[in-house]
Amino acid sequence: MKKEEVKKILEKTAKGEISVEEGYQVLKDLPFQDIGFAKVDNHREIRTGFPEVIYGASKTIFQIKEIMHSMVQKNISPILITKISPTVGEELKKEFPNGKYEETPQLFILGEKPESKNKDSLLVLCGGTSDLYVAEEAAIIAEYFGNHVKRIYDVGVAGIHRLFAYKEDLERAKVIICVAGMEGALVSVVGGLVDCPVIGVPTSVGYGASFQGLAPLLTMLNSCAPGTTVVNIDNGFGAAYTASLILKNRSG
Amino acid sequence: MKKEEVKKILEKTAKGEISVEEGYQVLKDLPFQDIGFAKVDNHREIRTGFPEVIYGASKTIFQIKEIMHSMVQKNISPILITKISPTVGEELKKEFPNGKYEETPQLFILGEKPESKNKDSLLVLCGGTSDLYVAEEAAIIAEYFGNHVKRIYDVGVAGIHRLFAYKEDLERAKVIICVAGMEGALVSVVGGLVDCPVIGVPTSVGYGASFQGLAPLLTMLNSCAPGTTVVNIDNGFGAAYTASLILKNRSG
Amino acid sequence: MKKEEVKKILEKTAKGEISVEEGYQVLKDLPFQDIGFAKVDNHREIRTGFPEVIYGASKTIFQIKEIMHSMVQKNISPILITKISPTVGEELKKEFPNGKYEETPQLFILGEKPESKNKDSLLVLCGGTSDLYVAEEAAIIAEYFGNHVKRIYDVGVAGIHRLFAYKEDLERAKVIICVAGMEGALVSVVGGLVDCPVIGVPTSVGYGASFQGLAPLLTMLNSCAPGTTVVNIDNGFGAAYTASLILKNRSG
Amino acid sequence: MKKEEVKKILEKTAKGEISVEEGYQVLKDLPFQDIGFAKVDNHREIRTGFPEVIYGASKTIFQIKEIMHSMVQKNISPILITKISPTVGEELKKEFPNGKYEETPQLFILGEKPESKNKDSLLVLCGGTSDLYVAEEAAIIAEYFGNHVKRIYDVGVAGIHRLFAYKEDLERAKVIICVAGMEGALVSVVGGLVDCPVIGVPTSVGYGASFQGLAPLLTMLNSCAPGTTVVNIDNGFGAAYTASLILKNRSG
Amino acid sequence: MKKEEVKKILEKTAKGEISVEEGYQVLKDLPFQDIGFAKVDNHREIRTGFPEVIYGASKTIFQIKEIMHSMVQKNISPILITKISPTVGEELKKEFPNGKYEETPQLFILGEKPESKNKDSLLVLCGGTSDLYVAEEAAIIAEYFGNHVKRIYDVGVAGIHRLFAYKEDLERAKVIICVAGMEGALVSVVGGLVDCPVIGVPTSVGYGASFQGLAPLLTMLNSCAPGTTVVNIDNGFGAAYTASLILKNRSG
Amino acid sequence: MKKEEVKKILEKTAKGEISVEEGYQVLKDLPFQDIGFAKVDNHREIRTGFPEVIYGASKTIFQIKEIMHSMVQKNISPILITKISPTVGEELKKEFPNGKYEETPQLFILGEKPESKNKDSLLVLCGGTSDLYVAEEAAIIAEYFGNHVKRIYDVGVAGIHRLFAYKEDLERAKVIICVAGMEGALVSVVGGLVDCPVIGVPTSVGYGASFQGLAPLLTMLNSCAPGTTVVNIDNGFGAAYTASLILKNRSG
Amino acid sequence: MKKEEVKKILEKTAKGEISVEEGYQVLKDLPFQDIGFAKVDNHREIRTGFPEVIYGASKTIFQIKEIMHSMVQKNISPILITKISPTVGEELKKEFPNGKYEETPQLFILGEKPESKNKDSLLVLCGGTSDLYVAEEAAIIAEYFGNHVKRIYDVGVAGIHRLFAYKEDLERAKVIICVAGMEGALVSVVGGLVDCPVIGVPTSVGYGASFQGLAPLLTMLNSCAPGTTVVNIDNGFGAAYTASLILKNRSG
Amino acid sequence: MKKEEVKKILEKTAKGEISVEEGYQVLKDLPFQDIGFAKVDNHREIRTGFPEVIYGASKTIFQIKEIMHSMVQKNISPILITKISPTVGEELKKEFPNGKYEETPQLFILGEKPESKNKDSLLVLCGGTSDLYVAEEAAIIAEYFGNHVKRIYDVGVAGIHRLFAYKEDLERAKVIICVAGMEGALVSVVGGLVDCPVIGVPTSVGYGASFQGLAPLLTMLNSCAPGTTVVNIDNGFGAAYTASLILKNRSG
Repeated sequence: MKKEEVKKILEKTAKGEISVEEGYQVLKDLPFQDIGFAKVDNHREIRTGFPEVIYGASKTIFQIKEIMHSMVQKNISPILITKISPTVGEELKKEFPNGKYEETPQLFILGEKPESKNKDSLLVLCGGTSDLYVAEEAAIIAEYFGNHVKRIYDVGVAGIHRLFAYKEDLERAKVIICVAGMEGALVSVVGGLVDCPVIGVPTSVGYGASFQGLAPLLTMLNSCAPGTTVVNIDNGFGAAYTASLILKNRSG
Repeated sequence: MKKEEVKKILEKTAKGEISVEEGYQVLKDLPFQDIGFAKVDNHREIRTGFPEVIYGASKTIFQIKEIMHSMVQKNISPILITKISPTVGEELKKEFPNGKYEETPQLFILGEKPESKNKDSLLVLCGGTSDLYVAEEAAIIAEYFGNHVKRIYDVGVAGIHRLFAYKEDLERAKVIICVAGMEGALVSVVGGLVDCPVIGVPTSVGYGASFQGLAPLLTMLNSCAPGTTVVNIDNGFGAAYTASLILKNRSG
Repeated sequence: MKKEEVKKILEKTAKGEISVEEGYQVLKDLPFQDIGFAKVDNHREIRTGFPEVIYGASKTIFQIKEIMHSMVQKNISPILITKISPTVGEELKKEFPNGKYEETPQLFILGEKPESKNKDSLLVLCGGTSDLYVAEEAAIIAEYFGNHVKRIYDVGVAGIHRLFAYKEDLERAKVIICVAGMEGALVSVVGGLVDCPVIGVPTSVGYGASFQGLAPLLTMLNSCAPGTTVVNIDNGFGAAYTASLILKNRSG
Repeated sequence: MKKEEVKKILEKTAKGEISVEEGYQVLKDLPFQDIGFAKVDNHREIRTGFPEVIYGASKTIFQIKEIMHSMVQKNISPILITKISPTVGEELKKEFPNGKYEETPQLFILGEKPESKNKDSLLVLCGGTSDLYVAEEAAIIAEYFGNHVKRIYDVGVAGIHRLFAYKEDLERAKVIICVAGMEGALVSVVGGLVDCPVIGVPTSVGYGASFQGLAPLLTMLNSCAPGTTVVNIDNGFGAAYTASLILKNRSG
Repeated sequence: MKKEEVKKILEKTAKGEISVEEGYQVLKDLPFQDIGFAKVDNHREIRTGFPEVIYGASKTIFQIKEIMHSMVQKNISPILITKISPTVGEELKKEFPNGKYEETPQLFILGEKPESKNKDSLLVLCGGTSDLYVAEEAAIIAEYFGNHVKRIYDVGVAGIHRLFAYKEDLERAKVIICVAGMEGALVSVVGGLVDCPVIGVPTSVGYGASFQGLAPLLTMLNSCAPGTTVVNIDNGFGAAYTASLILKNRSG
Repeated sequence: MKKEEVKKILEKTAKGEISVEEGYQVLKDLPFQDIGFAKVDNHREIRTGFPEVIYGASKTIFQIKEIMHSMVQKNISPILITKISPTVGEELKKEFPNGKYEETPQLFILGEKPESKNKDSLLVLCGGTSDLYVAEEAAIIAEYFGNHVKRIYDVGVAGIHRLFAYKEDLERAKVIICVAGMEGALVSVVGGLVDCPVIGVPTSVGYGASFQGLAPLLTMLNSCAPGTTVVNIDNGFGAAYTASLILKNRSG
Repeated sequence: MKKEEVKKILEKTAKGEISVEEGYQVLKDLPFQDIGFAKVDNHREIRTGFPEVIYGASKTIFQIKEIMHSMVQKNISPILITKISPTVGEELKKEFPNGKYEETPQLFILGEKPESKNKDSLLVLCGGTSDLYVAEEAAIIAEYFGNHVKRIYDVGVAGIHRLFAYKEDLERAKVIICVAGMEGALVSVVGGLVDCPVIGVPTSVGYGASFQGLAPLLTMLNSCAPGTTVVNIDNGFGAAYTASLILKNRSG
Repeated sequence: MKKEEVKKILEKTAKGEISVEEGYQVLKDLPFQDIGFAKVDNHREIRTGFPEVIYGASKTIFQIKEIMHSMVQKNISPILITKISPTVGEELKKEFPNGKYEETPQLFILGEKPESKNKDSLLVLCGGTSDLYVAEEAAIIAEYFGNHVKRIYDVGVAGIHRLFAYKEDLERAKVIICVAGMEGALVSVVGGLVDCPVIGVPTSVGYGASFQGLAPLLTMLNSCAPGTTVVNIDNGFGAAYTASLILKNRSG
């Protein structure tokens, strides 16, 4: 709640337009909807203009459906649910026939993609074909956040000529999301080539001493290329969100 | 065995009321029942007045049944078994038709819930809908330990206004159990708002660098809010037990 | 700030006793003192009645002195500073000649110890002589928080008869702080003997696979004795604080 | 090959009883049987008098059968295979109808148990019912190594009176195998009560901060009770082997 | 080197304005200066307009001096060297009397601070007084990168009212650098309050289970507040660099 | 692209044989084929003469098929796909009936094995039967890279006489690949016996404190036998590749 | 306290030879001496016949002196203090001029070495010269425990012929203490050569991925040679104690 | 000892040229020199032709001197001692005035550098100036092993154009040693550019989440560029040794 709203309530109370009790009720009445096991935060969308994204991985199908129905009732659209297995995706499709399930990034989506803006601004790179599940999560969510997304996939540093073929795209970008598993070195190389923020997303792709993504996570955190920051392993959504904030601010 | 009992046995032996051999037998005869693979501890209930709680996760169905039968024979009630999968729950239901299986917290319960006391004293909070499985384990067990429990769920720090809507409940509480996964920051915020003990329960909810609950565990252990202590990851039972001890002592 | 105060400000504004601008000023004016690099929280003491405890380890001598002077000006007493090296302790002694430095727990104290209450209620145990630095931090701080403290030291489980000699003290206690390094098994044994809350404090005493206290930390978190909770490695202060909250509630 | 044998070959060669080429063949011809993917070590049994124990966990059924047939041909008996799932156990039962499968310790056994000796010498303890799978692996293998084994199960330190009921057995023992999961504190308590070697076996029983047995492993390694050594997590076999070596030497 | 430059060289070669050998020399002659043990990268400054920042921690005084002289010769100014101990700072002061040493952030600076722009845009927060060494590294470097920086220090979540007193500053900010040690929960709370990018910097402040900054690092990576990214432990420079890129792009 | 080629393009442009635009196109046109989700690197084979090896573990069947078809079209042969489960292997067999699936090393192979050279040069050792899946991956790939491979399996250090029986083979080898799980000590012993490079491959075989291969990985990295280097856990392919490079250079 | 003693007290009470109060006093009066910060355990020596060994590392000089004086008063001799720095050693030498300080193992010793027995039974091996500090701690303490000790040092597996030169000693031994840092492979090789118990002692010698002894610790725990057990990193004392128990039992 | 030698001894014994006892003495008399705390391995040099390198880090000055004297007596030259602090270096200089101390790599060297061969074959790269201490250890030792070494330093991937300026050197190399700290990505980029073996050496340079070199170690182990192997953190010597073996075999 912003300062102006607090002041307005105080003014109304001062003028006797609302009673002290009413004033208190408003102040304590914060903008979320309580559906028992969840408090759906309707505030965020108003504030940021971004559609709602629900983390689906450890919720039951019942809980996901209830949260979605609560949002549909409030005319929130689009709604995106991340980390949804194909089985759960099918169940949701039955309940929300207008929705669609994206298999690679394991996303369930209800509602239309907004028109994109900021052409050439947002680049999503990934190191290998195996990283697509995270890269697509980032790319699609960023598109639903209103961005134009350019994808350049399978440009890992072990064949660095593949990356350099896209040097112009790299130079045009305003934000780059860089998805990589195994050793995750792509972030450092890209970070050294561009002068825009690079958001590293380590993936759990790999085996042995990758330790489920610990290796690329440490690589990216220790990157000697400045201008790089990192999100959690496999967190395509988080990268898309920050990238969108940076681009939104640009045009704001 | 308390000092008085030792003395009484010595006195009886001194007076010749019991023989030396008998005295020794009593001294060595400690209160548990040996059923081969388990030594059922009948002593705890007498001492604490709390019902018996069995850790079910790595026991076979056969072992659980035997332990339960041994308790039923001793008229111990209620009996709670934690970390029981739906399949095992069904099996137990067949053997003990009066029992019931709580799906969210994966609890099997045989016997009635005692009347609750200490209204407003025990608050169970959780950060997100995904943490319910632990929050409900804590809440239900605390109820079976005789406490009145107020649940406030899905009040994670990323939308902190949801928590502040319950500030009065926080202030009224005598003990708070605070369940959170992912980054587990809820404990620090709550700990800074109240002046009663806060028991943090990290959950294994999350992915990537959560490392199965290591992240919220470390967060809670390093909390800069004093008055907070921590139990094992996903250990709702442990939190309920300590909270009950604190409240029991209050009224004792 | 409590609900009543918010209401009172709204009432005053409603009655025109204070202007809207004044009302806003009060609402935003929260109780801390800004001395540039620190915001001294004067609120806590009023709320809990406990003296202020400052974490001294990573602050410069200059910063510690400034914070202390700011408190002395507000007539806050006593003031305790933890994790102070002998050298820094000497410096502080020069600046605050009425203060004293406790060498074993590395505490600097300014002000008088309050009278103790709750006799027999608070027990501080430790496993070995080497754990004294943490046990004494807990014990002395608990005393300054107004508790009577009984110390039983060097009762590690490898010579368990030493612990059992104090069984009566264990049974009389209302809260037990249990300090142990190396394998930290003391918590489990004590937790199984008593029916009051046991707060485990792992210490960094040990070598090799103790990994600076990781071993006893894990031991205590995995304790199969219910009623035990854990604080950070070497965090004697945290244990004392929670123990005091539990005992304060008892008598409140 | 012992010094005497080397000398004998040299003597025979010196005397011309065997040719230089023959001498070399004997020297290089070490006692194992090559069946392609495995070199079956026939030497160990002759040397130690213990039956052969095969680690079955990561071998294919085909490989296990081949190794067993190779041993059966050499009249090696009994043969024990550890870490065998029920499904594989069934397959082996079909191939070797005289064998038997022990479900709790997941052992397949072909051949008869030898007569036991050393009564009262070897004690196998475990902390909880959940640890039985390792305790039984240790106990049964120790019996097949010719020892009399006394089992005392479910005597974890959280109810320490259950352990003390067996104090006489503890004092009579010549070697104790101490199996425990969760916090693994049993080893320290037992180690402090007896004056014989105690072999700790941490188990992977537990959850959360047990980290698949890391917690009890560290506990046991850091035990402040001298006379305790440790084997790998869940390694009941290793404990049985060392215990048998110690007892064998005693009577040797 | 940009596409246009490559084309221009090709054109010049095509027109015979430069020979094939000369063309090759230019292509291979990339913009850095080789001083033996270091290749000073003169390219970055031209590209980004940011002054040069040298990581001083593991370089010898001799190496630092040589690198600085090489830059001074090229009229690069200002030059900042991070992680410089007081002793080394003094040595550098002797060699470069116009330089100055900032003690809290351990920075050596040669050259003038540019005029700041972007008022209200960049906020540097820190959780406690102990985190100042990192917060000041971020704040000062960001100032030398041309930004106006607002500092709000010691606003850790355990006394969350201290943070809320600055809610207006939080709402005005375009980028927030959030520095925190111990449990590092500040990032999640701040991330939930604002709709601009938040860059988390974990610090190595803390003890025990902080594991030299691992705890706040994991906390920040697992933050459930979207819009937050993370840099390496104690990496104030990295946060300042990314924040500057975001703000530069805004005004570009 | 080699220097000569760059020069040649410059020369052609200089002579007007190709236009500036054409020159640029060639320079930017690097040798890989873009099939959307993958950029197939055709360059490597030309450069090294080794067949292409695809990491199959985290790719979908669809992706693997597409990549293979793209290669088949380019007449690349043989093609090897690693870490293929039996189910996927069957699917590939349907699509490429000329291919074959090797079950132990989980390899799918399309195309003929080249004639081997370098007899006695490449030795693949493994510690136990359980390590065969990695040893065979290394051995078969090395054969497809044109090497003659001698396999010596199940020669772990606990029965060191089995290894010594092959001392002559050890001495003749020019490179040794040494595959071992559990404690991985084989590398140190072999490294001390030979004077050729030894490549250690830790495997994830083991349990408990092996931590999925961490134990043998650390063992090999800390080997006190010089001349040993290490690849990732279970990375038989990587060892085969490096071994082949060493032998290729020998004969080059 | 043994069963017989309990019975005897009961008998005396029964006969009226001692009063009930006296009986209780004796029962509760366990054999240790309380000197405030330490409870000196006089029981152990009587029970095991081994001299007292004090862990000196984290005790103050004052505490060590007090504990020693308390023992000297009780005529306990010899007394050994482990992990004593040269500076502390000098201080102790002043207080106890009859004592001596062993520099390599950092031991302070007061009292005479007993006559050794069990010739050829106890072997102490170490991998490298750098491991001597632990090997000597084990060897000297074992000698003070009454054993004849044969030392074979610097026989690491990278030059395995050095170990084999002592094959006869290996075969004669009844217990072997095997000290090794770096990769710690010595235990597996030795364990495979002998048929007596091998006690592995990992040392913190090494660098990088040795992680202060974690590498050899994991190596030894995962040893595929049966008959091997492990003690804590650098714990020479623990190995000596267990070895002595094994040998004591042999002759008992 | 080679097969031929064994046969020769057998032949001599057969012919009566040497007695059985003499034969045995020779067989058991393996080539090392026992100086008490060390067994100096004179065998290696004869076998490999490389000079002796001693790991100096955890040996006392006395031990180092004794080992060196033992070698000097045997006319072994040159002798290199690694990881020698400046203070110890000075001490050794006094004892061996002909020796010299290299400060950057902390090497003490006694004896002349052999003439180099294999021009252009061995490249030592490092990522940053801070990595020089390891790069120089590798480079100098490789030179003493008879190789011509080309050094290219400070070519980290964050300014990848600096690396590409040396593309011709990369292509000419037969073996590359690649030294890098922080995120260690250099190995992957280099590995993708060349077709010779690349040996990665992670360094402990960095801070925070570098965890003393763990980050670059994991990066290098997970490198998606084939042909790369890894040695221990900071192990310049190990890389030089393997590189020399590869090059030696080439010319052999």
